[in-house]
Amino acid sequence: MSVPPKIFTASESGAFVEQLRLEPTGSGSLDGLTFAVKDLIDIKGYVSGCGNPTWQETHPPAAAHAVGVEQILAAGAVCLGKTVTDELAFGLDGENHFYGTPLNPRAPDRVPGGSSSGSASAVACGLVDFALGTDTGGSVRVPASNCGLFGIRPTHDRVSLAGVNPLALSFDTLGVLAGSAEVLARAAAVLLAVEVPETAPVGTVHVLQEPLALVDAEVREALTKPLGRLRQRFEGSLQETSINAVVGEAPDAGLQPWYETFITIQWAEIWSSLGTWVEAARPDLGPRTRQNFDMTRTQDRRQVGAGVRRRERYFCALKEFLGPRDLLVLPTVPAPAPLKGTLDLNRTQGNYYPRALSLTAIAGVARLPQVTMPVAEVKGAPVGLSLIAAHGEDAFLLSAVRALADD
Amino acid sequence: MSVPPKIFTASESGAFVEQLRLEPTGSGSLDGLTFAVKDLIDIKGYVSGCGNPTWQETHPPAAAHAVGVEQILAAGAVCLGKTVTDELAFGLDGENHFYGTPLNPRAPDRVPGGSSSGSASAVACGLVDFALGTDTGGSVRVPASNCGLFGIRPTHDRVSLAGVNPLALSFDTLGVLAGSAEVLARAAAVLLAVEVPETAPVGTVHVLQEPLALVDAEVREALTKPLGRLRQRFEGSLQETSINAVVGEAPDAGLQPWYETFITIQWAEIWSSLGTWVEAARPDLGPRTRQNFDMTRTQDRRQVGAGVRRRERYFCALKEFLGPRDLLVLPTVPAPAPLKGTLDLNRTQGNYYPRALSLTAIAGVARLPQVTMPVAEVKGAPVGLSLIAAHGEDAFLLSAVRALADD
Repeated sequence: MSVPPKIFTASESGAFVEQLRLEPTGSGSLDGLTFAVKDLIDIKGYVSGCGNPTWQETHPPAAAHAVGVEQILAAGAVCLGKTVTDELAFGLDGENHFYGTPLNPRAPDRVPGGSSSGSASAVACGLVDFALGTDTGGSVRVPASNCGLFGIRPTHDRVSLAGVNPLALSFDTLGVLAGSAEVLARAAAVLLAVEVPETAPVGTVHVLQEPLALVDAEVREALTKPLGRLRQRFEGSLQETSINAVVGEAPDAGLQPWYETFITIQWAEIWSSLGTWVEAARPDLGPRTRQNFDMTRTQDRRQVGAGVRRRERYFCALKEFLGPRDLLVLPTVPAPAPLKGTLDLNRTQGNYYPRALSLTAIAGVARLPQVTMPVAEVKGAPVGLSLIAAHGEDAFLLSAVRALADD
Repeated sequence: MSVPPKIFTASESGAFVEQLRLEPTGSGSLDGLTFAVKDLIDIKGYVSGCGNPTWQETHPPAAAHAVGVEQILAAGAVCLGKTVTDELAFGLDGENHFYGTPLNPRAPDRVPGGSSSGSASAVACGLVDFALGTDTGGSVRVPASNCGLFGIRPTHDRVSLAGVNPLALSFDTLGVLAGSAEVLARAAAVLLAVEVPETAPVGTVHVLQEPLALVDAEVREALTKPLGRLRQRFEGSLQETSINAVVGEAPDAGLQPWYETFITIQWAEIWSSLGTWVEAARPDLGPRTRQNFDMTRTQDRRQVGAGVRRRERYFCALKEFLGPRDLLVLPTVPAPAPLKGTLDLNRTQGNYYPRALSLTAIAGVARLPQVTMPVAEVKGAPVGLSLIAAHGEDAFLLSAVRALADD
């Protein structure tokens, strides 16, 4: 990944819904850096449009910056704009029916990924040093992987969501996308209010079997070298692990139980968070978003209790299993970014969405922090490799990623 | 506490904003029980009025039950109504300028406490077996203590908040109030998706020094007997502990750093969650609520980063300190429920609010679960004693409380 990306203009990128300039309110570890903010996260005086024109029209300007934005500005960074998001953050594709598809500069015929599509595009196009995104079911990790970036989904409930429009609160997180592990660590450390240690000795590294079995053969092939480097580096402390064995699921279940657990809770929560507005405002929605909300509206909500019970079982099993210096390793995505215009209308169909959500569900369901690193290419497009750490071990994870990126 | 309370009618209680009947959607551990729901938590087809008439007028009916309500209905309980809340849940008093003061049947000249005022009143008046409330800065614990009930604030982020109107997301929780430890455990176990063990051996019991020093002398006096029983029961494993020593604050700091950490983050988050509506809708607000929002609007938000850093420091220190079977013990409130109409307009002034929030801030800041138990009376009014357990140890805590209540 040593070829520096061509620099694109903001207008070529299509990343921004609004360019602006907010000066820092303090000085600190982010002095001299610039950032952009997904248009789901409040900037005082601007409507958080959430990627939908009816939402934009039916909501007033924000009274204050989101708490996360306050933290970043106080640490010295300059905000340069608000970025395109999938409608209401309900998507992993990055094709917004109303606001277009931000450029994936690493693979211009492919989608950037979503829902933090503009944030990924702005960083990958070299327009900002880092960007804030949200990640409920992969909305930081997937676009970061697609665009050749580093991206973190923090431990759930460790970064303030005040001033961030909700999607599914049990999974919503505020995360960061950056072009380097160093900038990622600096920005995420501010949000998490942690110190990232200079060095972080690693315990056991678990390469997860089910995720590798799930992805395209070309992705598996492309990850052979990076995984080989990990094997070399962690010789003796690296092992192949079945995630289903850890949580007591059948060995042949694949990631289906993770996927089902995730969407059962996610859909119920999405309809609780956004259904009232959808029914009252009767918004203009893109065709994919309309189908998405139809599914959440017609779900049998009596099942949510069973989903929550399985979630807690998985969470407890992984809490027991993962030591504070252990890592899980898995591909971030099942395939390189889809070609533009090729994704199914129905997210439960086709070969992309269910597999992508199966991979991202592990950290989501288990409330664990995950970082994706740009390590390989498939068909000329980037794919990321992810590390997951134990609950609350975000500082260790960021340090471990920084050390690996320096190799 | 063996005198059964006089039974009041719903109309005498003033607890409900709306009486209704929702049949269970399944059968389980809550079969045969009835419950009520704070009017901040969605019931399908009803506007969540959040205790303010302008809010009620400017919001449409909920498209779905909150996820927590779905869980409870699926476990067999019948919902009997929506209960009065302090405006936007921003209060601990229970005196709603627009909807009145629900009856505290245990001390009718005193407030019930808030913000889950109607939920506490409905349970204490014998109108339902348990009620759902929310607790950001004490809104379950304080009214439960004032009305002679058991109440739980669960570990932060372990009960879904989807369909619950936000106040300050880093502290918001969905909790339960009940007349017995047994019903409390059954209802909370459903929300938390845990099994409460029959017996729970207890490790070290820490009676916290600073909270006891803070409360009225009469409260300290009234708690002497219950604390004596604890000392007897846990002889050899009970000790007096300074919470400030645990987190590395000066011994003479009292609970001031906890209070300040809490309100710095809470105010910033409240303005992020509700300020946009307050500025756009220009709502009719009660005088106390207007002052509250004025304070959150004019806060210097650049300080929130320092608040979050201190919060994480306290959280980590307590995580290190508290074993999975250890307990912290403290008074729930600094004084019995205030007499009606006597509270200061400004919540940062006077002798009640700052002390009450100092006590409740410990579990809030440290994300820990807390249960208040009705154990004593001061001036004929109930006061509760609280137990706090380690992060995520809600099932153990509920079991320990049930065992103590059976004594």
